Amino acid sequence: MIKEWELLESRVDRDYRVFRIQSELAVSPRTNKVGTFYTIDTRDWVNVIPVTPDGKIVMIKQYRHGSKEVTLEIPGGLVDEHDPREAAERELLEETGYQGNSAELLGFVNPNPAIFNNLCHTYLIENAQEVSEKTLDPNEDIEVVLMSPEEIPAIIARGGINHSLVIVAFHFFFMKNPCLR
Amino acid sequence: MIKEWELLESRVDRDYRVFRIQSELAVSPRTNKVGTFYTIDTRDWVNVIPVTPDGKIVMIKQYRHGSKEVTLEIPGGLVDEHDPREAAERELLEETGYQGNSAELLGFVNPNPAIFNNLCHTYLIENAQEVSEKTLDPNEDIEVVLMSPEEIPAIIARGGINHSLVIVAFHFFFMKNPCLR
Repeated sequence: MIKEWELLESRVDRDYRVFRIQSELAVSPRTNKVGTFYTIDTRDWVNVIPVTPDGKIVMIKQYRHGSKEVTLEIPGGLVDEHDPREAAERELLEETGYQGNSAELLGFVNPNPAIFNNLCHTYLIENAQEVSEKTLDPNEDIEVVLMSPEEIPAIIARGGINHSLVIVAFHFFFMKNPCLR
Repeated sequence: MIKEWELLESRVDRDYRVFRIQSELAVSPRTNKVGTFYTIDTRDWVNVIPVTPDGKIVMIKQYRHGSKEVTLEIPGGLVDEHDPREAAERELLEETGYQGNSAELLGFVNPNPAIFNNLCHTYLIENAQEVSEKTLDPNEDIEVVLMSPEEIPAIIARGGINHSLVIVAFHFFFMKNPCLR
């Protein structure tokens, strides 16, 4: 039976706006030794699978500064709101100009519980239709791409979608809609 | 057509042993404005789905300092070796005492290309059998649990597995073995 560790100290080592590095001391219940752990404190994240009235998925291409490449993803971002559902609807509108039915929760995960303390929530937004221009901040540059659900598994298999949280979102989507796979 | 950004500067802001925070300046090809981006520089990660001769998956329970909870995962860790395959075989042996056939690559992802520059590689190790004791460092406390592949989708659906990279690993596994789902 694995036990929790006693936390002796937890302090912000440095604040990087979108995340903070937390320096922590904790006691191992197995060895009673104290270890230092660096964890990443950040707001929850959200991503959304938007489906148009004719069954296409609204995806985006954007340049990513971590991997230094243009990626194929679904809309998403940081949760600023009390309710991640509102963040899903806002991110869809801002990043694509699309709007649809009320967002429906498909599932949530921790990006990596070894270092992150947050969740990434995945929503489905059906009946998504273009209602406005995109609202991009100076650090965003986004192209909207419509894809068929049936194309997605092969794109993932050949590495055309390589963002782990986007693959998790499609896992939840296809669990709900196995016939589209 | 989304373009890459020109990188003006990239320096290590702080080194946290298992990862470093990189502070970068880059020019937007859309607005020509310079933005500051904090990215996480880290070695590649690996995880492994070990399958026993009678078809069970060797999973582990451990306390995670990011989420502050005990999680159900598959073995994995940082790649210290030149070849991530060797890291998969080493992590399986260290964390569980199991060893099997040569590790077979199922797929790889970027944990989150917005902030990470590394890959997480997923391997399959068949014919996994207990050959020794676990080799845990003072900061590890691990319990081995054998699960049937057929149980996994329901465990994910109810949040019993919530590590995004473990769900991605099972996505790759079930793409290869759809009949076990």
